[in-house]
Amino acid sequence: MNIQSGTASQQAYETLRQRFARMGHIRNALGILGWDKDTMMPTGASHSRAESIATLAVLSHELMTAPDMAALLDRADAPDDAMARANLREMRRQHAHAAAVPSDLVEAASRAASHCEMAWRTARRDSDFAALLPALQTVLSRTREIAAAKADALGLSPYDALLDQYDPGTRQADIDPVFAELSSELPDLIATALDHQKGQPAPLPLPGPFEVPAQEKLGRDTMRALGFDMARGRLDVSLHPFCGGAEDDVRITTRYERDDCLNALMGVVHETGHALYEQGLPGAWRAQPVGEARGMSLHESQSLLMEMQICRSRPFMDWMAPRLRAAFGGSATDAAWTPENLHRLVTRVRPGFIRVDADEVTYPAHILVRYEMETALIAGKMKLADLPEAFNTRIHDLLGLKVPEDRLGCLQDIHWPSGSWGYFPTYTLGAILAAQLREAAERDTPSIMPAIGNGDFAPLLDWLRPRVHARGSGASTVEIVRDATGAVPNTGPYLRHLRQRYCAEA
Amino acid sequence: MNIQSGTASQQAYETLRQRFARMGHIRNALGILGWDKDTMMPTGASHSRAESIATLAVLSHELMTAPDMAALLDRADAPDDAMARANLREMRRQHAHAAAVPSDLVEAASRAASHCEMAWRTARRDSDFAALLPALQTVLSRTREIAAAKADALGLSPYDALLDQYDPGTRQADIDPVFAELSSELPDLIATALDHQKGQPAPLPLPGPFEVPAQEKLGRDTMRALGFDMARGRLDVSLHPFCGGAEDDVRITTRYERDDCLNALMGVVHETGHALYEQGLPGAWRAQPVGEARGMSLHESQSLLMEMQICRSRPFMDWMAPRLRAAFGGSATDAAWTPENLHRLVTRVRPGFIRVDADEVTYPAHILVRYEMETALIAGKMKLADLPEAFNTRIHDLLGLKVPEDRLGCLQDIHWPSGSWGYFPTYTLGAILAAQLREAAERDTPSIMPAIGNGDFAPLLDWLRPRVHARGSGASTVEIVRDATGAVPNTGPYLRHLRQRYCAEA
Repeated sequence: MNIQSGTASQQAYETLRQRFARMGHIRNALGILGWDKDTMMPTGASHSRAESIATLAVLSHELMTAPDMAALLDRADAPDDAMARANLREMRRQHAHAAAVPSDLVEAASRAASHCEMAWRTARRDSDFAALLPALQTVLSRTREIAAAKADALGLSPYDALLDQYDPGTRQADIDPVFAELSSELPDLIATALDHQKGQPAPLPLPGPFEVPAQEKLGRDTMRALGFDMARGRLDVSLHPFCGGAEDDVRITTRYERDDCLNALMGVVHETGHALYEQGLPGAWRAQPVGEARGMSLHESQSLLMEMQICRSRPFMDWMAPRLRAAFGGSATDAAWTPENLHRLVTRVRPGFIRVDADEVTYPAHILVRYEMETALIAGKMKLADLPEAFNTRIHDLLGLKVPEDRLGCLQDIHWPSGSWGYFPTYTLGAILAAQLREAAERDTPSIMPAIGNGDFAPLLDWLRPRVHARGSGASTVEIVRDATGAVPNTGPYLRHLRQRYCAEA
Repeated sequence: MNIQSGTASQQAYETLRQRFARMGHIRNALGILGWDKDTMMPTGASHSRAESIATLAVLSHELMTAPDMAALLDRADAPDDAMARANLREMRRQHAHAAAVPSDLVEAASRAASHCEMAWRTARRDSDFAALLPALQTVLSRTREIAAAKADALGLSPYDALLDQYDPGTRQADIDPVFAELSSELPDLIATALDHQKGQPAPLPLPGPFEVPAQEKLGRDTMRALGFDMARGRLDVSLHPFCGGAEDDVRITTRYERDDCLNALMGVVHETGHALYEQGLPGAWRAQPVGEARGMSLHESQSLLMEMQICRSRPFMDWMAPRLRAAFGGSATDAAWTPENLHRLVTRVRPGFIRVDADEVTYPAHILVRYEMETALIAGKMKLADLPEAFNTRIHDLLGLKVPEDRLGCLQDIHWPSGSWGYFPTYTLGAILAAQLREAAERDTPSIMPAIGNGDFAPLLDWLRPRVHARGSGASTVEIVRDATGAVPNTGPYLRHLRQRYCAEA
């Protein structure tokens, strides 16, 4: 009987493995359709494409919530292997999320978000929060209903249930003390950084124009140098840079401006960080839950490690400066093309209203404000009508700026209108993890930064591959970070990094 | 009771409408994934993409063959509208095809074809038919099993059952007399055409090279002039030109060579003919069976009408000559760029071994041979081992050429290795319909060809849109052609066209 029961439970696992593979293949199809929508699709196809994407999403959801799934997951037993056990655990987690929400609520939320996104484009242009309020209130209500349903099913608070969708295992109780520390440190840190900057020479602007084909070639060469496998991915152009695509087909995008060559390049290296994570996921677990990236904090840690920790560093600019100059025909005697000046250009601190344009030092202030707002709104402790004033007050506290219109304040991001509540904190958690991972990598392999000064990124990638990328979802974010760095996630390395780079502290 | 029964039957139709819409949305997704595979996909993604495509195909097949489909189709009654009734008829036809073949046979056939396609690439390169024989025999056996299963279910002969997959309603009994006539006329027609050609000046080669960006711009301008809606489609590059994509997203491709500008242009106008059909399908029936193109003969008629009847005509070259010359910086005094010479270049007759390189006059000979071979093989009247000799004998009969190696003979096409038996005749049926439609269009609207001489393709498209494109699958090919031209499909206009253009007969 034991053997037979063992066999039945292993058969259940095998059935689940096949079903999740199907969902993985659908997810890959959706990845390509989404990439195409933002890079290639003619405008007239938007309705037809929306129908195809919605149909595949529904088919996948139907597979996940099939009537016998709960019983299969109960009965299943994974082979005696850590990754297989983690795979079954992730199957259960994904199923619990999907099964917690009735499909009519999923549909109502999706419809509310589509409608609100459209309203947002107009409201942002007109800086008219009142015009957005009704649609945004509907999105918030549907989101709170989803949060309540998931909270019940998962035994979490409503906000934690939302957070868990993007960053499995991360809880508000972990974030609160971290963000409280940042909140008290940031104003002084920003002031000190600006003060230090005043004592330095102002960076010289690079002499343009910067022709697009030259920018594209430089971006592609840099991706390759960082370790991007061009046989399993692409670089293209889109309005907003992203990393998408599918397994063995990781597609990143950037955007070129003829009067600036550093923005597109920093976009490329940021998305390359995401892409290296995707390309390094465990190959033996393709299309299975455990083969997916762990969560958005760790994903963002990989893009920010590459962009902020590595490619805005002085050693990187030692290598990049002659390449940049050659790409755009700069003069060897022009001081604008020196590594010093380029490093100054990409580490300039300038408090501003727009999150996506923020520098490394002021960026977390934008996230703190959004985190405070969305936790209060989801908990029902704040009215949506009070959002603009509360938002602007906190921006003033942290950045010393008075928001002149909501277009530059709480209307600037698509996240809330599109229903992505609980996503914002992962940006700053990612920045914290990026610093912690880079510090540990340098401690383990002191040659990493000197090698980068010579254009050799292999030591860094060799360190990251087994410790982060290849673990997939085989462990929690905390476990992966602790195993890689010897410490649980903490702000020490991040604050050290900011103070060293921007306040010239030792 | 009658009212209630009426309601139940209409509810069944509505349920079917929704299910077929889902299949339509999946088909659109597959169209984009297929296009991407041949134009954008990095090589390393081929396995992942194959899995995604197979998964979507299986999901669609499962929707089509769901246990309650037969009962729904039996019970359903369409609204009182000719297109709705045709829609229900097409649902039944598609279901009958899908349900006739057990899914393990579908899978075995698909696996045999994948394997044989791989073997074919090597065998063709090595001109080694014996090496391909076992794999090709397996494909033929599986195809004959599918043909037998469909023949049983549809009440057709095995070959007609295969043909019906590509060209609904077309039967061997219709094709045989048409192809017998061509078979007896062709040798004399080819001889006369070659004889006439000898009496004409030899065409002057165009002075190259032809830069790719200029070729691409010319192709795009020409597509637009022909009526292609760029907001609902694209032009890209692939190894073999095709028309693919999805509804409201019709994507054609071509291939550029720096030493020839006419091949790519003729490729563009051929695929634009296909694309205009797709873009003109009835908008109210998107994602429904009746909204699809009628079949491959009519589809090929639209590409050949555009390429052969229109764009290789003298009036077209009157308009195109100065554009071509300007695109490639040709001299106004160089006789190579005159309409006369360009027309001679695109109507050159030269018997050869390769079907896809054949001119308009010798092309049907290649199809006749393949049709004779595949009907005999499917009927079991010929052994596969005897194919090369039989093939070469008939090529010699019709074209006077001795095939020196099978690479240039029965190994040249992918159709048989990939399991596409019953497809070849649609090429020549399409050529016949193209001539018949063009003749009728000119009779109805005598200004069509003069307008084309001025670059105005609207009169032609205005004639085709309601008579061919907008009918979708609302009627049979024979009905559509008869309604459009006043006659059932016949070879008269086609042979007249060939004799007028190539033998200078009035």
